[in-house]
Amino acid sequence: MSYKCIYNGTILTMNEDRHIIEKGAIIIRDREIIEIGDCKELLSKYHDCEMIDGKGGIIMPGFINGHCHVSMSLFRTLGEDVPDRLRKYIFPLEENIVDEKLVRVGAKLSMAEMILGGVTTFVDMYYYEDEVAKVTKEMGMRAILGESVLNKKTPDSHKPYGGIDYSINFIEKWKKDDLIIPAIGPHATYTNDGEHLLKIKDIAHKYDVPILMHLSEMDFEIERFKNEYGKTPIEYLDSIGFLCEKLIGAHCVYTTDNDMEILKKNRVSVIHNVGANAKSARPIAPIHRMLKKDISVGIGTDGPMSGNHQDIISVMHQYTKFQKVREGDRSIASALSAVELGTIRGAKAIGLDKIIGSIEVGKRADIIIIDTNTPNMLPLYDYYAGIVYGAYASNVTMTMVNGKVLMKDRKLLTTELSHIYDEVSQMKDIILNMIKS
Amino acid sequence: MSYKCIYNGTILTMNEDRHIIEKGAIIIRDREIIEIGDCKELLSKYHDCEMIDGKGGIIMPGFINGHCHVSMSLFRTLGEDVPDRLRKYIFPLEENIVDEKLVRVGAKLSMAEMILGGVTTFVDMYYYEDEVAKVTKEMGMRAILGESVLNKKTPDSHKPYGGIDYSINFIEKWKKDDLIIPAIGPHATYTNDGEHLLKIKDIAHKYDVPILMHLSEMDFEIERFKNEYGKTPIEYLDSIGFLCEKLIGAHCVYTTDNDMEILKKNRVSVIHNVGANAKSARPIAPIHRMLKKDISVGIGTDGPMSGNHQDIISVMHQYTKFQKVREGDRSIASALSAVELGTIRGAKAIGLDKIIGSIEVGKRADIIIIDTNTPNMLPLYDYYAGIVYGAYASNVTMTMVNGKVLMKDRKLLTTELSHIYDEVSQMKDIILNMIKS
Repeated sequence: MSYKCIYNGTILTMNEDRHIIEKGAIIIRDREIIEIGDCKELLSKYHDCEMIDGKGGIIMPGFINGHCHVSMSLFRTLGEDVPDRLRKYIFPLEENIVDEKLVRVGAKLSMAEMILGGVTTFVDMYYYEDEVAKVTKEMGMRAILGESVLNKKTPDSHKPYGGIDYSINFIEKWKKDDLIIPAIGPHATYTNDGEHLLKIKDIAHKYDVPILMHLSEMDFEIERFKNEYGKTPIEYLDSIGFLCEKLIGAHCVYTTDNDMEILKKNRVSVIHNVGANAKSARPIAPIHRMLKKDISVGIGTDGPMSGNHQDIISVMHQYTKFQKVREGDRSIASALSAVELGTIRGAKAIGLDKIIGSIEVGKRADIIIIDTNTPNMLPLYDYYAGIVYGAYASNVTMTMVNGKVLMKDRKLLTTELSHIYDEVSQMKDIILNMIKS
Repeated sequence: MSYKCIYNGTILTMNEDRHIIEKGAIIIRDREIIEIGDCKELLSKYHDCEMIDGKGGIIMPGFINGHCHVSMSLFRTLGEDVPDRLRKYIFPLEENIVDEKLVRVGAKLSMAEMILGGVTTFVDMYYYEDEVAKVTKEMGMRAILGESVLNKKTPDSHKPYGGIDYSINFIEKWKKDDLIIPAIGPHATYTNDGEHLLKIKDIAHKYDVPILMHLSEMDFEIERFKNEYGKTPIEYLDSIGFLCEKLIGAHCVYTTDNDMEILKKNRVSVIHNVGANAKSARPIAPIHRMLKKDISVGIGTDGPMSGNHQDIISVMHQYTKFQKVREGDRSIASALSAVELGTIRGAKAIGLDKIIGSIEVGKRADIIIIDTNTPNMLPLYDYYAGIVYGAYASNVTMTMVNGKVLMKDRKLLTTELSHIYDEVSQMKDIILNMIKS
């Protein structure tokens, strides 16, 4: 048995009472949290643990990135600040250039960034998702991974809806993994028809896996469903019986009051990607209102071509400010509510709150340490505000997933950054050549 | 004579052509940039320089923080997410607790944070500004500093408008300093009457110093001028003849089209503090429109109680996203425009573009290096986008002001962080005791 002890820090448990333990410690056996309490007490009770010094910082649950496309890191800063980027830039680029190697290298780069920023779990949908899964295992992260399904040729399928067969194989391969939860990822309402969506829903129920989908994100999507059906995309999906508690819908920026009632009725989760949405000049999703209606919400970075940053601290920060401005009320979207979205609510939104999202006995040890002894974090009267309004991803000094330390003192322990940089550099040259030709 | 050479990096000059020099070098003699060019060429021409290795990163002008209250760092994370924070929380707190020591300690903490984040020049208005000036000298930064003037008792004046006399002494004391530009700071339209504002304007013209003022920031400010004069605050200031090119107006969030015309006509500069304004749920200033009208604009953090972060990378990032959402257009408020606001346009807005804001021969050597060999910055197809959408303040690895290196490899060279932390900790206890009693 392997025991670890994280000590000498303030524990933000994010449990139901949002209990904060100053001068606390956590005992971890293998992958599980087995005791939480006063530092002195636990240090005198447990011996022969591997000791992890919190150095007076904040000890808290790892962040949950509810929506991303990790492999797109290799396209970051290409075609910035241009209109209709998805159809004019991203789709053509992907069609020509995405292969297994690009997916692996991009995924690795993103996971390095996420681990350094305290993200312990992420939800991904892209192509060649099996490669993403392999890299996730290598890096030691926890993830929900879904192959994208589209009504057209994709990088890894010559026929439309080829992602469905890929998904079935992928799900069967990874279903029993301890850290990877396979899913199925119909790309969006405008790239999947009703018939195939229902087929996907059947598969998700047969295998008991989540459905990942972009939802109510695009202006042309709203326009099209209005013209074709006189409905919002969410009303349409409800009318065909697609919506269910397995659906994790990303974005939902055009959500109407009626849409919110539908989402709630069907127990659909929403992932808010404010950093990416704002960069695309989209409306800001009514997250404060969704939370008041008790809709399950998490937050995500979206792909690094859209959101660039891949850390959840930055997303929490943007969530508070955009909601406050949206509603004209500085007292809403508090720092605490942001940390909830980045941890326990995010875990609930992706169906994992029984095992992660808070520091509680019996849960998996997905834990991070934030250094508070830095000019941007001092003084610290309010831990949540300190994190959300003042911290940078670089203030995270330890990241543990499933009881395993993946990063300590800003050094990644499961990979060599220099190898990643070499591979990224090679891929960059390939991408630049392809664009030029 | 002391020569320095910054080499081995990509230089974003931010000169009029926005020239970018890959594999460039900069030669600095004492405080001045004397040559800029190809790395190999300059290395063969100059010997016996102190060498500063850019390590393949970005070499660019230091950032300009156009509006802040550095000493308020000691109040950071107090009373977050509460309504009417200024009048219910900040003013009473300041009245009871602000003294010379608090001003010094808070200023030092903020300057440490700014130097670590690549800020080389800041504009400050607060109380005991002479203490801020002394700390600024000690830390080696460049600053425009203005004592606040209010129509009421303040921490350093028992009588209303005591800041005016303080300002005259302060200006006379610092007028000839190489790094500090004294100014006068009428706090706001709602804390200064017209008569005193005109007196302040006379002083500013007599001594040839800038006027720093909060402008069109508060909902109650707009309401009051509408009720009393049927005017906006900016229309009122125009009507009494207060506006002039010496005025640097912070915030301007409620600016109307007519206000913009007035600002332009009078050559008033605007400092945009989006991070602080958004956290206060205020409207987002129409900066894109101001820039189209050729109004001089810079960006700032505001005080660390309002904006928390004291780095300009974070403000540039928020500027782009809030403007894109405000105008519903992802192609505006580009990454380049953000870097312009953080450097050369910021310098122009505070009247210092003749000596700083770009890397040009003859200008002062206020230069930073940004490390690009980090997971969040790779790959880098577009330098401006990489900085604005992807960088953290912690990616800055060298900060030079007036030819002097203030930070290298994340280590501050002009102060001991541990001393600052000790002082901050003592002040925190004092503040907590005062709040409790």
